[in-house]
Amino acid sequence: MIDAYQASSQARVNAALERLFVAPSPQLARLYEAMRYSVMNGGKRVRPLLAYAACQALGCPPEHANGAACAVELIHAYSLVHDDLPAMDDDDLRRGQPTTHKAFDEACAILAGDGLQSLAFSALLDTHMSTLDAQTRLQMVSDLALAAGPAGMVGGQAIDLGSVGIKLDQNALEYMHRHKTGALIEASVQLGALASGRAQPSDLQALKVYARAIGLAFQVQDDILDVEGDTATLGKQSGADAARDKPTYPSLMGLNAAKAYALELRDQAIDALRPFDAAAEPLRELARYIVERRH
Amino acid sequence: MIDAYQASSQARVNAALERLFVAPSPQLARLYEAMRYSVMNGGKRVRPLLAYAACQALGCPPEHANGAACAVELIHAYSLVHDDLPAMDDDDLRRGQPTTHKAFDEACAILAGDGLQSLAFSALLDTHMSTLDAQTRLQMVSDLALAAGPAGMVGGQAIDLGSVGIKLDQNALEYMHRHKTGALIEASVQLGALASGRAQPSDLQALKVYARAIGLAFQVQDDILDVEGDTATLGKQSGADAARDKPTYPSLMGLNAAKAYALELRDQAIDALRPFDAAAEPLRELARYIVERRH
Repeated sequence: MIDAYQASSQARVNAALERLFVAPSPQLARLYEAMRYSVMNGGKRVRPLLAYAACQALGCPPEHANGAACAVELIHAYSLVHDDLPAMDDDDLRRGQPTTHKAFDEACAILAGDGLQSLAFSALLDTHMSTLDAQTRLQMVSDLALAAGPAGMVGGQAIDLGSVGIKLDQNALEYMHRHKTGALIEASVQLGALASGRAQPSDLQALKVYARAIGLAFQVQDDILDVEGDTATLGKQSGADAARDKPTYPSLMGLNAAKAYALELRDQAIDALRPFDAAAEPLRELARYIVERRH
Repeated sequence: MIDAYQASSQARVNAALERLFVAPSPQLARLYEAMRYSVMNGGKRVRPLLAYAACQALGCPPEHANGAACAVELIHAYSLVHDDLPAMDDDDLRRGQPTTHKAFDEACAILAGDGLQSLAFSALLDTHMSTLDAQTRLQMVSDLALAAGPAGMVGGQAIDLGSVGIKLDQNALEYMHRHKTGALIEASVQLGALASGRAQPSDLQALKVYARAIGLAFQVQDDILDVEGDTATLGKQSGADAARDKPTYPSLMGLNAAKAYALELRDQAIDALRPFDAAAEPLRELARYIVERRH
């Protein structure tokens, strides 16, 4: 069931994203092509799925979260473009394809990433948002800026870069992940819920607990797959994190304990959704999927 | 008179900016220090001045534009950090000080720039904004995102990078500058005007004409100073653009014609302000200053 939901979310957000990459003039064609290349790359669209599913959990058609879904995916995409740069992780491949600075050049990749971040805020205010009250839309902008910024995702990347070769304990590792990946996952759920126009403070609080748990579960499972997966399935080199001496959950806890921890987080996430009815089933399915996926 | 206005604008925005760089945890201290270093560097704060002066031109105290002033300066600062990177302009000095990637490192400079862009949107929604209606604040976010993004400033930088060694004509050069510097200057004036809570569409239109003219005048004068200035006064190497074979107004029109053009643009800018009373005097003074400055 999650496969079908994921496929329809992917198709929906891809259609909305595709409209953003029409260059306004020939002089801007290469920049827009680089942005498009960085985004339309077969990504699983987990963050858009979360936005759609949260919107739906509040009884609203998922399309209403199109702006939110595009925005969080654009932030995610820009972070990958910059993360892959030679001065950062220096990766040549992303999902089996040349990274943006390899397919274009480094300057173009820096600018494409910069442009994608701005575009996220434009997209958030664009599609399917006109029926929402202005105060709710402002809340969405504010949440996105906080999640993407130095106290959120960018901060997490800075902590990650600063911790290569350093023995982090589990608290420090979780602090890093709560910023690097957790903040945007939380924002995906919050923005999707706000896009419904029906989110009560108690709904937002329950969804925050859910999002924190799956965000962490996602990272724990990623670390497990980095140990267990192979290069062909992952589309990147397996064991890459370990090779760079980055701390991981399996290296801190042992592989079996990390697996048990992922399952515990899944249960926490599903438990947080108790106030919601069957409309929250995609969110529950996703929590299960995250710890069962093989890539 | 513009010196005093500039000094008070600079002090006002610096006080507001300084509050943004308090790291929420020791793990984030280096990133926040890099962001602070990139912003609190003795900049002239022309864009904040524009925001304050536009707010004042509509009869509102300049402090009401603090959020707008911070936001446009943060966008400007991030663009300089990324522009100075080795893969871009590869500059070691900025206002006589080591550039961010020299003072810290390249990865840190990329992330500091990324973080400053997010912070701009947070700052825009923060200080002195609570009395403005939500719809106006949304308009400000939307204007800022458009001006900063691929159809604005980032697009201009992409065109600029793509035009090194190419003989641009004057139209193509202006198209580049309207994006690279003009879009954010326009946004500075528009956001400042919107922050007054009193801007009518006709005011915004007149200020747009003003901003376009001074934005272009600013660039023409920069090109003139690049030919005429010396390294000590400019805080960067003079003749740097010519050395890179970048097209400039003096190289296209000749130095004297470029000077006459700058004066013509000043007159256009002042003319656009005819509907405004004496409260718009700082905007008029700035138009005069731009073409008279020596650095």
